[in-house]
Amino acid sequence: MSQNIDASQNLSSVDGTAAGIQDARVAVGKLADRARSASRVLARADRNWKDRALLAIAASLDTHRASVIKANAKDIAAGKANGTSDALLDRLKLNDKRVDALIAALEELAGLPDPVGTVLRGQTLPNGLRLRQVHVPMGVIGAIYEARPNVTVDIAGLALKSGNAVLLRGGSAAAHSNVALLALIRDALESVGLPADAVASVDAWGRDGADAMMGARGQIDVLIPRGGRELIQRVVTTASVPVIETGEGNVHIYLDESADASMAVPILLNAKTQRPSVCNTVETLLLNANAKASGEVLAALHKAGVRLHVDARAKALAGSTPTIDAQESDWDTEYMDLDLAVAVVDDLGGAIKHIRRHSTGHTEAILTNDLSHAERFIAEVDSAAVIVNASTRFTDGGQLGLGAEVGISTQKMHARGPMGLRELTTTKWIVQGDGHVRS
Amino acid sequence: MSQNIDASQNLSSVDGTAAGIQDARVAVGKLADRARSASRVLARADRNWKDRALLAIAASLDTHRASVIKANAKDIAAGKANGTSDALLDRLKLNDKRVDALIAALEELAGLPDPVGTVLRGQTLPNGLRLRQVHVPMGVIGAIYEARPNVTVDIAGLALKSGNAVLLRGGSAAAHSNVALLALIRDALESVGLPADAVASVDAWGRDGADAMMGARGQIDVLIPRGGRELIQRVVTTASVPVIETGEGNVHIYLDESADASMAVPILLNAKTQRPSVCNTVETLLLNANAKASGEVLAALHKAGVRLHVDARAKALAGSTPTIDAQESDWDTEYMDLDLAVAVVDDLGGAIKHIRRHSTGHTEAILTNDLSHAERFIAEVDSAAVIVNASTRFTDGGQLGLGAEVGISTQKMHARGPMGLRELTTTKWIVQGDGHVRS
Repeated sequence: MSQNIDASQNLSSVDGTAAGIQDARVAVGKLADRARSASRVLARADRNWKDRALLAIAASLDTHRASVIKANAKDIAAGKANGTSDALLDRLKLNDKRVDALIAALEELAGLPDPVGTVLRGQTLPNGLRLRQVHVPMGVIGAIYEARPNVTVDIAGLALKSGNAVLLRGGSAAAHSNVALLALIRDALESVGLPADAVASVDAWGRDGADAMMGARGQIDVLIPRGGRELIQRVVTTASVPVIETGEGNVHIYLDESADASMAVPILLNAKTQRPSVCNTVETLLLNANAKASGEVLAALHKAGVRLHVDARAKALAGSTPTIDAQESDWDTEYMDLDLAVAVVDDLGGAIKHIRRHSTGHTEAILTNDLSHAERFIAEVDSAAVIVNASTRFTDGGQLGLGAEVGISTQKMHARGPMGLRELTTTKWIVQGDGHVRS
Repeated sequence: MSQNIDASQNLSSVDGTAAGIQDARVAVGKLADRARSASRVLARADRNWKDRALLAIAASLDTHRASVIKANAKDIAAGKANGTSDALLDRLKLNDKRVDALIAALEELAGLPDPVGTVLRGQTLPNGLRLRQVHVPMGVIGAIYEARPNVTVDIAGLALKSGNAVLLRGGSAAAHSNVALLALIRDALESVGLPADAVASVDAWGRDGADAMMGARGQIDVLIPRGGRELIQRVVTTASVPVIETGEGNVHIYLDESADASMAVPILLNAKTQRPSVCNTVETLLLNANAKASGEVLAALHKAGVRLHVDARAKALAGSTPTIDAQESDWDTEYMDLDLAVAVVDDLGGAIKHIRRHSTGHTEAILTNDLSHAERFIAEVDSAAVIVNASTRFTDGGQLGLGAEVGISTQKMHARGPMGLRELTTTKWIVQGDGHVRS
């Protein structure tokens, strides 16, 4: 993979100080133009060709796993030297098992249907005009994310399969890993006759590179930030390129009066403890004041190691279960840890009111045996996913049968909820006539 | 309609100087909150209820047409005093015939299916989870437009039918007309038991009102600017609220070598002269150097009053037909008048190259009898609508069978091409289980 390693970023300028924002704009503009040219090849590549590229990347990851893990070790060492937290180091880490997971994900992606060319609507009008609204690639996607090198492979794979070129800004903490992964991806593209420029990185220009991407209106079609609140807010508020917002999940579960403990306890344990660090984990439990399952649920959560941040009424319901007094800020905190805010509400209306005030619009669930309550919750809660009697952990592209996903959109434009391949496309109207003029 | 006329804007502050941007932010924030509450009622209103509101507005327009036309006369008089151009005065004008058209549009809208509640995808997963992705209203839409009072009624109607509340900024030139129309719309809403706050105007805060809307992130779900280039660019580059860009059409028609004059002449005449001031009118004609129909097409356009801005090679093809020498800027000019830029290209590849450089991504057409050329044009031209052997005037919601439209989106996010009712909705995933947890 020598050619693209040579052509890849000069690590000495990864911190973004070597080049100013003007230089970054020019350089990123050139990368975007080359990505645009590459995108035109990809847009016309058939599924078979794109799948061969995905499998070539997977094979190369397998072949070069030692050098990828070695590059990653440099990032880990640098992170340790910088005093990076264990949680962040864990996200940064690549090992054999994680490389296997990346390979498996690429192979799974190759097995998914191609969204490009599928017809959304079509008809022949009374005047004989033939119409089709067809899914086509966006063109050039920009991805801005943090120190997770696996995202480099995930996003590149999703972009390729949906026929898009992609510019990546992966964060300096994973710089060595990303250089190795990028070179391998670009070589694999060339090995199947696709242009390497379909996947490129702006990491050499550091934060200036990210800023240049945000301003590359007309050159980048859509920006997808993936990461923490601060990153996403910065992109959303400063970018002139359209942004699909992903992420933040201040997820609520409302335990209705009628819910049985036998259903509520397993769902709460799953939603809070299975993987506390992800966006579809529950962060606030709303207890109906008369919910019969309250005591049992709180005791089970405590037993599972969950710290309960309770309001005064929830404290009373907790009985002998140890709790922490909640602060006002707890209702808006995405803990991403074994913490749970717990509030008591008088009724379903109170739960909906609390959710309207504090939800980030990701996922909310109701646990109930009352049909009218389920219907009202579905109708009135304005979130990307509304769940009845199941774990909030199901808000996930793979779980919902969409296949791989780019993230969970918490906005209302373009895509809402898990963003699979289809959400990385736009549409084009194709109108065919025989000399038709408008009367 | 006294109550809402009283409650409507104080015209003395329409110029935006009376209140600062801070005051505007507070006031617009309050209007948006009231619109949010109203949107929750609308989101649950069934089609019948919304259609009754549309018909009540139509009936009220009919009843109060004299007072609406009288209010409009004040705007026209003010416009004349300000030296407003005849073209703008014509757009501003309301008369009996135009009021009739607004009434007819509302009645037609009432006849369209309701997008809310339609299921985009749905399935039961192997584990028994029931999934539906359902169209739901956006919530609160913001519309910023220029001196066309008919847009006030159009946008309010489209927003209502799609279950959304809407904040309007209609421009000071149409202030009196808009106050009269708004009062009538709000009264009609109340007459059928829907909240008047579902349709409100920020015109009382002038440009500050528009600026406040652009910054009302989280309170307004989407902004739709309608108007000239300057307006749209200002909204797109300054708004932190997501924007759906509509409008600009630098539309191309490519006349292929193989096209017959018998088809090309009627299409070009229709595309250029039927309604030159709208966005789907052709602005540049690209002639294949060997197109047999060139001379006849240019002569027919000239005869129809079209001024031909030609490059050197097109001048030669024009023969005795009078022409104007094109400037470089002509290739990027949306004339919206009886002017047409004409360039000669060597082949289809040259046409696609010209289009990539100068198109605004609205509509491009090819006139050809060569199947492979048609297919290549469809595949490689990256515009919202790609047309083969028909007039570009068909890029229109009504013509394409979508019913009424908000505008033509020239961007790739969310909606592309004519934006009908469906494009004013988002989706919600509804997940129903029986105690399901993720394994």
